[in-house]
Amino acid sequence: MFKKRENIKEIEEGNLLSPKFDNDGLIPVITMCHKTKEILMLGYMNVETLKKTIETKEAHYWSRSRKKIWHKGKMSGFVQKVKEIRIDDDQDSLWLVVDIGDGSSCHVGYRSCFYRSIPLGEIDNARKIEMKFEEKEKKFDPEKVYKNQPNPTKI
Amino acid sequence: MFKKRENIKEIEEGNLLSPKFDNDGLIPVITMCHKTKEILMLGYMNVETLKKTIETKEAHYWSRSRKKIWHKGKMSGFVQKVKEIRIDDDQDSLWLVVDIGDGSSCHVGYRSCFYRSIPLGEIDNARKIEMKFEEKEKKFDPEKVYKNQPNPTKI
Repeated sequence: MFKKRENIKEIEEGNLLSPKFDNDGLIPVITMCHKTKEILMLGYMNVETLKKTIETKEAHYWSRSRKKIWHKGKMSGFVQKVKEIRIDDDQDSLWLVVDIGDGSSCHVGYRSCFYRSIPLGEIDNARKIEMKFEEKEKKFDPEKVYKNQPNPTKI
Repeated sequence: MFKKRENIKEIEEGNLLSPKFDNDGLIPVITMCHKTKEILMLGYMNVETLKKTIETKEAHYWSRSRKKIWHKGKMSGFVQKVKEIRIDDDQDSLWLVVDIGDGSSCHVGYRSCFYRSIPLGEIDNARKIEMKFEEKEKKFDPEKVYKNQPNPTKI
């Protein structure tokens, strides 16, 4: 599909897209809000969804929990309009900059999936590290939006 | 080490750190510059390096290519001072905000590993997608900094 990975110099210093997919056929994708610069989510794409994302300019991921193509926002309405895609030095991870307007990204109801921070410094008891909620209010009610869809989070 | 993952409600809505490591014992980490908000790199941590990062406030990763603990910047001098760590809804990815001063992050010599962008729109020939260099100049000479270290990029 994409250019074959043949030598390291080309991969790092060349200008041809030659992404590396892992043993499951996936590449991790960092998704950032173009307005606030916050990280909205970390997702995964396969060859097909990367191609769809480039062509449609709307983020398509591979849902590892549902094991199918995931046109982000198709159910919630919070489609991600892609403004820019970058790839890293060894071409094994992607950075998407997207426009979600005043929408949300997180299936729990928050704007960003990264709504909690981890305290820094000495750890007394690793089993009891208390995080802080950086987002205080949900932007939508997931039970209304997703109705009876199974929760993608796995233990 | 960290709190055991026991139920989805606790993982998503609770305040105790209970990260999920994949089959290789790793969790992906998005690293952002606190000043420019650019993504510097995507790395991986295991239990030990996450703990070290929290405690020392300097980013420690697990190097998948070298298969060892990687105190980022120990060789190049570009240590990442951690300002904030966030975790996502299902606690299987991390977002680090770091201070690297006027330093660099990329072993190829650029400031960010994400120095190339992928053009959006219709794909004529996926084997020949030409990317654009968003960073024009290297910040340091990797041959001088890393001397005879093997290149971590793998085909």
